Amino acid sequence: MSILAVGSIAFDTIATPAGRVENMLGGSATYFSLSASYFTDVRVVAVVGEDFSAEHENVLKKRGVDTRGIERAPGKTFRWGGQYLENLNEAKTDFTELNVFEKFQPRIPSAYKDSQFLFLGNIHPSLQATVRHEMDHALLTGGDTMNFWIQGSRPELVETLKLVNVLLVNDGEAKMLAGEKSLPRAALKVLAMGPQALVIKHGEYGATIFFREGAFGIGKHPFRAPTLPIDEVKDPTGAGDSFAGGFMGYIASQPQLNREVLKRALFYGGVMGSFAVERFGTERLQSLTREEIDARFQVFRELTHLE
Amino acid sequence: MSILAVGSIAFDTIATPAGRVENMLGGSATYFSLSASYFTDVRVVAVVGEDFSAEHENVLKKRGVDTRGIERAPGKTFRWGGQYLENLNEAKTDFTELNVFEKFQPRIPSAYKDSQFLFLGNIHPSLQATVRHEMDHALLTGGDTMNFWIQGSRPELVETLKLVNVLLVNDGEAKMLAGEKSLPRAALKVLAMGPQALVIKHGEYGATIFFREGAFGIGKHPFRAPTLPIDEVKDPTGAGDSFAGGFMGYIASQPQLNREVLKRALFYGGVMGSFAVERFGTERLQSLTREEIDARFQVFRELTHLE
Repeated sequence: MSILAVGSIAFDTIATPAGRVENMLGGSATYFSLSASYFTDVRVVAVVGEDFSAEHENVLKKRGVDTRGIERAPGKTFRWGGQYLENLNEAKTDFTELNVFEKFQPRIPSAYKDSQFLFLGNIHPSLQATVRHEMDHALLTGGDTMNFWIQGSRPELVETLKLVNVLLVNDGEAKMLAGEKSLPRAALKVLAMGPQALVIKHGEYGATIFFREGAFGIGKHPFRAPTLPIDEVKDPTGAGDSFAGGFMGYIASQPQLNREVLKRALFYGGVMGSFAVERFGTERLQSLTREEIDARFQVFRELTHLE
Repeated sequence: MSILAVGSIAFDTIATPAGRVENMLGGSATYFSLSASYFTDVRVVAVVGEDFSAEHENVLKKRGVDTRGIERAPGKTFRWGGQYLENLNEAKTDFTELNVFEKFQPRIPSAYKDSQFLFLGNIHPSLQATVRHEMDHALLTGGDTMNFWIQGSRPELVETLKLVNVLLVNDGEAKMLAGEKSLPRAALKVLAMGPQALVIKHGEYGATIFFREGAFGIGKHPFRAPTLPIDEVKDPTGAGDSFAGGFMGYIASQPQLNREVLKRALFYGGVMGSFAVERFGTERLQSLTREEIDARFQVFRELTHLE
C-alpha cells in the first residue's frame, strides 16, 4: 500500500564532532520518504525553491519515491544550520531561513488521493489538519510535532491531535504537551487528547508505544523497542523522521493493522533511525538493502530477547 | 548461596516533588541488602554511629539480613541530604556529613568468609580492593563506583577494576571512566580495563549489559533490560543500589552462572529499582513479596517481547 508524506525539504548545514557539511539535502519529508521507501510506495508533498536541482530530486526518485507532489516556488529552499558539537542528542540551531517554506500550502495531487496511509510531518498543525481533512479516507494517519507548535500553536495542535491515529514525539515533547513529568502519566494524558497510539522516542534508548484501551487490540500494556548505536553516530539529523519512515513504512507494508504489527513497526523505526545517524545527511538511507535492515532488526530483537 | 555486601549505611534527608523526609535509613549497603534479600542470603559489612538504633537494625534483620558485620563506632552515622526538586534523574546534594564513615575500614567477620558472592558498594576503591583480596575465593564479585572516585582516585580505581567481575555504573560514569562519548565504545574500553561484564544503568530506560568476548558464554552481543515507571516516582534515592541488589541477588540464587542468568538478572535489577522509587527511602523494599517481584518481571519482559 502507499503512504503520502507531507513535510519539509531543506538544505542543512551541520557540524558534529565527526565533521561539517554545507547545504546538504535534508528535511523531514526527505528523511521520512527515503526511510519508508524500503517498505512501501511513498508519495511526497513539499515545497522547494529554484535551487532544488534535478540531482536533488533524483535522490528521492532513485528510491522510487513519487515526487510529483513537490512544488517549485520562486525563491530559495528552506535552509537550516545546526550543530551537535557539545551534545549529540540535541541540536543547537545556528540559523533558520524558512524561504519558500514560510508560505507552504500543501497541495495534494489527485494521483495521490488514493494513498491508504498518511504521515503529517512537522509543519504547522493547521496545515496538518487541512491535509488530514483532504485525506479523510486514510486507513491510518501518523503525525509529528515539536516544542515550537506545542508552545506557540497549542489550540490548533489540540484540534489536529483529534485527527491523528498515531502521534510520534520525543520524551520532552510528550511531557511538555501533557504538562506532566512522569512519562507513563504524560502518555495517558496525550492519548486522552485524541490519538489511539502514542510513540515516544527516547533517542539512543529506543522508543515506547502506548495504546489507548481497545485501540488496535486489547490491553493497556505499552511496548518498548530498544536500540543501541551500532556504529559511530556521525550526524543525528533526521533520526526522528527516519524512525517515523521505518515505523509507518512497515505498517503500510502489512496486510493487517494490529498491535503485533505496531510492535514490529516500532523496532523497524529504531532500525532506520540507527542507520540514518551513521553517516552525514541521507547518505546511509540512500544505499541500504532490505537484507541489512532485517539483519539489524534481528540484532535489536535479540538485544532484549530472553530465552 | 550467600552474598557479602560492603557499603554505606546512612541517614538521608531528602526532598522530592512528592514530599520531604528527614534522617531516614538509607545508604548503599541498606538498599542493596534489602533488595538482594528477596533472592538469597545477605551479609552486610558497614559502619554506623551511636545513633543507629535496634529499630534501624531490625529493618534489615526482618528481611533475614545478617547484620553481625555492622560495626558500631563512636560518633554519628553518615548523613546525606539531597533534593530532586528540579530533576528526578539527578540528585542535588545539600550536605554530606561523613561522620563515622570517614574512617571506615571494612572488617569481615570470620562467619562471612564463606560467602560465594561479593558486592563492593560505592566506597573508596582501595577499600574495595582490600575487601576483594580478603574474599579471593568469591565466585563472582560485583562492584559499583561513582564520578567522585573516577576523577579523584583514578589510579586506585583502575587497580580495583582488575578485581571486579561485573562493574555496575550509569551512563555518565561509564563515559567518564572511558573518556568516550559513545556508549558502546565506552563499554569496550571499560571491559578492557578488567571486568568480564559491564552493566550500564540508564535510569528509567533500563540497563544494558556488555560482555567481554568469551566471558560467561560466547558472542559479543550486549543485552538490554528495559524498565518503565509503573507507579509515580516518589524518591529516586537508592534506585541504583536496589538494582544491584536484584541483579546480584538473582545471580546468587541460581545454580549456574552463564549469560542467560545474567540477562534475567538484569531484568530483576530493573524490577527492584522500579519498586524502590515508588515510596520514600526503603519503605517499598521492606514489604515486597516474591510474587509481586515476579509479576513485575513478567510485565517488563512483555514490554519488549515480540511474538
